[in-house]
Parts: sequence; structure tokens; C-alpha cells
Amino acid sequence: MGHKLAVLAVDPSSATTGGSLLGDKTRMPELTKDPNAYIRPSPARGHLGGVTRSTNESIILCEHAGYNIIIVETVGVGQSEYAVTNMVDVFILLLPPGGGDELQGIKRGIVERADIIVVTKADGDLEAAAHRAQYEYMASLKYMRPKYPGWKPKVMQVSAKTKTGIDKFWNTIEDFRKATEEQFLSRRANQRVIWVWTHVHDGLREMILEDPRIKHQTDKLIEQVRLGTVNPGTASDKILDSVLSYMK
Amino acid sequence: MGHKLAVLAVDPSSATTGGSLLGDKTRMPELTKDPNAYIRPSPARGHLGGVTRSTNESIILCEHAGYNIIIVETVGVGQSEYAVTNMVDVFILLLPPGGGDELQGIKRGIVERADIIVVTKADGDLEAAAHRAQYEYMASLKYMRPKYPGWKPKVMQVSAKTKTGIDKFWNTIEDFRKATEEQFLSRRANQRVIWVWTHVHDGLREMILEDPRIKHQTDKLIEQVRLGTVNPGTASDKILDSVLSYMK
Repeated sequence: MGHKLAVLAVDPSSATTGGSLLGDKTRMPELTKDPNAYIRPSPARGHLGGVTRSTNESIILCEHAGYNIIIVETVGVGQSEYAVTNMVDVFILLLPPGGGDELQGIKRGIVERADIIVVTKADGDLEAAAHRAQYEYMASLKYMRPKYPGWKPKVMQVSAKTKTGIDKFWNTIEDFRKATEEQFLSRRANQRVIWVWTHVHDGLREMILEDPRIKHQTDKLIEQVRLGTVNPGTASDKILDSVLSYMK
Repeated sequence: MGHKLAVLAVDPSSATTGGSLLGDKTRMPELTKDPNAYIRPSPARGHLGGVTRSTNESIILCEHAGYNIIIVETVGVGQSEYAVTNMVDVFILLLPPGGGDELQGIKRGIVERADIIVVTKADGDLEAAAHRAQYEYMASLKYMRPKYPGWKPKVMQVSAKTKTGIDKFWNTIEDFRKATEEQFLSRRANQRVIWVWTHVHDGLREMILEDPRIKHQTDKLIEQVRLGTVNPGTASDKILDSVLSYMK
């Protein structure tokens, strides 16, 4: 279709476990050979804040480098999804055909933020399960408050093996774009603001707690908390008071 | 068994959605009538930081009030689990018999932190699925680095309906305690330190960003970011510089 595609993989778990869940370019052997595609594996280190900042900035870089479709892919470990919903125009949730029962628990928070839900692996002996899952997700979505006035989240099935449902999926993204076009600019504006706060909070933490005077007092308090002679609430209040006392 | 039991429900999603996933006392009709049990529903409002602080402090209160078993229950929306792993002596993950396939994605981050995994609803026509799920989780755990030298995470099945597996589950918790007894005090010490940092970070954010001089500049920058005339990275760097300039 003549698009230029960038794939940014976000995998904060790689920072703690050492290995990346997303595998890497081996998962996308055809795409890696395509001159119109760019794949950026997750940064190997850094806490979630660092990962989100670098992903945010990579999105802008890719836009300016002419990539008109940018996929930000996450592994679904929870925290990264929440960060990513604030970076993208459309949030798509891919779920295996495991059944909607679990919506009650693990996935519900993230399902609520999805604009499109895609049940994957809808082929072979999983076809019936995929169908069932689609209906269960559709039923659950009925009770959720929609994010946008003009859009009710859609649930669909795809198969990467048989290529079923992929055209329809793409058209649904286009439909979403048209239906929420009016909110497009304000959504991006809100996202930029959220981004500022994320960076400010991360920066504050590093900046202030590395002030040598504060660090000295902090180290002592932390030692006392470790020994149990000072309780955590008291220690944190003291650290905050001391930060305040160093403000002009 | 003569225990005094407290149940603290943590449900940060109730702050955003208005309704609590955890239902409330209606889920535990027998327990609510027991004079040796105390059930505290999730605070209805407040961000994750506030919820964790109040949960942490409730744990201490309950301990001092003589509750020797304190269950901190979360809904599994992702962020709250990470917070809760840093508050408890044993972290138990309850999963429906949906199959371990999804470990690759949504649940893996949290599975890695579990000390005991319990497959629930192991009765009726879900018995076979529960059995399969148990084996799949056991297989997946093989490749994970254990949290404690003396403990390999266990996977078991229970049924609340037929009461199957509940004794065994309780014994496993005791086994866990014995196996990790040596690390008990250092783990609690580490948790207290994490708790200090969580409170300090939350407090810093509120304290500094509410300074009227900083707030004035921040409001202007946020407006420009919203309009797109200043980019988010620049704005956050400016806010941080200004905080720094107000430090003595």
C-alpha cells in the first residue's frame, strides 16, 4: 500500500529479567528485509520512565523520518500498557483465544482502554475458542463506558497463519480514525501534557534525591528504617521536610 | 484454628471506573459475620500511591490490633500487584483454569513474582482444564529465576466449591514460611525501604509542583505544549531547571 512502517517494541521486563519477551527481529523476518520498514527493539536497560521517554522520542523521530505508520508494541506485563495508551492514536489489544472469563481479573483494566480488541490465532482447532472469546469480549464491553463519544470498541478475530481478518482489521483502524477525527488534535495535546508530567516526575526524583545534603540524611534514615528503629512513614515525611527546607 | 484474620482489598481501578471490581462484603458473607475477621474494602478514591500508602499503614494497624493473618487482595489490573509484592510476606497468584499459553504475554511479569500459584475453580467440567493449566504453569516456572534460594514456586489447584486443595494450600504457605525464614527479616527491611521511596516520590511530586512560583511557570508551559508550540521534552527540562533554581 506504499506505507512506510516503523515498529517500536517496548519491553520493560527485559530490564529486570535480562531477556526480552518480544524476541526481536527473528519474529519479523520479512519485515526486516523491507526497505520501507524500520524495527527498533526495546532498549535493553532502564526503568519504565526511561523506556517511555525514549519511546516517545522515537515516535517523533520516526514521524519526521517519514514513517506514516508507527506501531508501538508492548508485551503486556501491565505497567507498559498504561504508559503506551498515552502515546498512541489507537490502542489495540491482541488477545489469544483463551476466553473472556478472565476479564474479571487480570485484563479488565487494560480492556477498558482498548479501542479495538483482536482475538488472535483464529484458525485450526482454536477457531471455535476464538469465536467464543470474541462474543465474550463483546458482551463484557457492553458494560464499559466508551472512551470516545463516536466510537464503541470493536472486537474481531484474525489469523496470521491463514491471513483471515487482516483486511477487515485494517479497515476498522481507518473507521476508528474517521469516527474520532474530531478528538484527534485534543487527544494528542493531552498526550503531550501527560508526557511532560511523566518526565518531570522522573526527573524530580533523580535530581532532588541526588543532592548531596539530602542524600546524606536520606542514607542515615534508610539505615534506621532497615533496622526498624524508624518507621517508613516517619522517614519519608522527614526526607520531604528536608527537601522543603532546601527550597529558597 | 484460632487465627484472627484481616482482609485488605486493594482496587485502584475503583478510583477511575467508580465501581469496585472486588465487589465488597457481599463476596464474603460468612467472614463478615465472624468476630475474628476484619474486612476493609478498597478506599474509593485516590491514585495508586495513596492506595499503597494507606494499605501499608493498614497492615501495621492490623498487626498491632492482633490480626495474625493479613490478606492483601488485589484485582489483578497490573499496577497494584507490583505495589503489593512489596508489602507482603508471601505473594500468591490466583489464576482461573484458562491455560498457561498466555504466560507469554499478559501474566508473565507477575508470575515471576509469585511464591505460590493457585489454579482456582478446579471442579466440575473445569477440572481437566485446571489440571492442564497447573502443568503448563509448572513448565513455565522451570525457566524462571527463583526469588529465594530455598524456595521453588509451587503451583496447585483448589476449588472453593468442593473445598478441594485448601488444606494443602495452607500447608504450602507454612512450608514457604519455613523455607524462607532466614530471609524473613531482611525481606521486611527491604520492603520498608521501598515503602519510604514510594512515599517520598509521591510527596515530592505534590510538594514541589504545588509551589506557587513553579506552578505559575508550569501552567504556561503546559499551555504551550498543548498548543504544540513547545515540545514535551523541552517543557519538562525547563520545569526541572526551574525547580533546581529554587533549591538553596
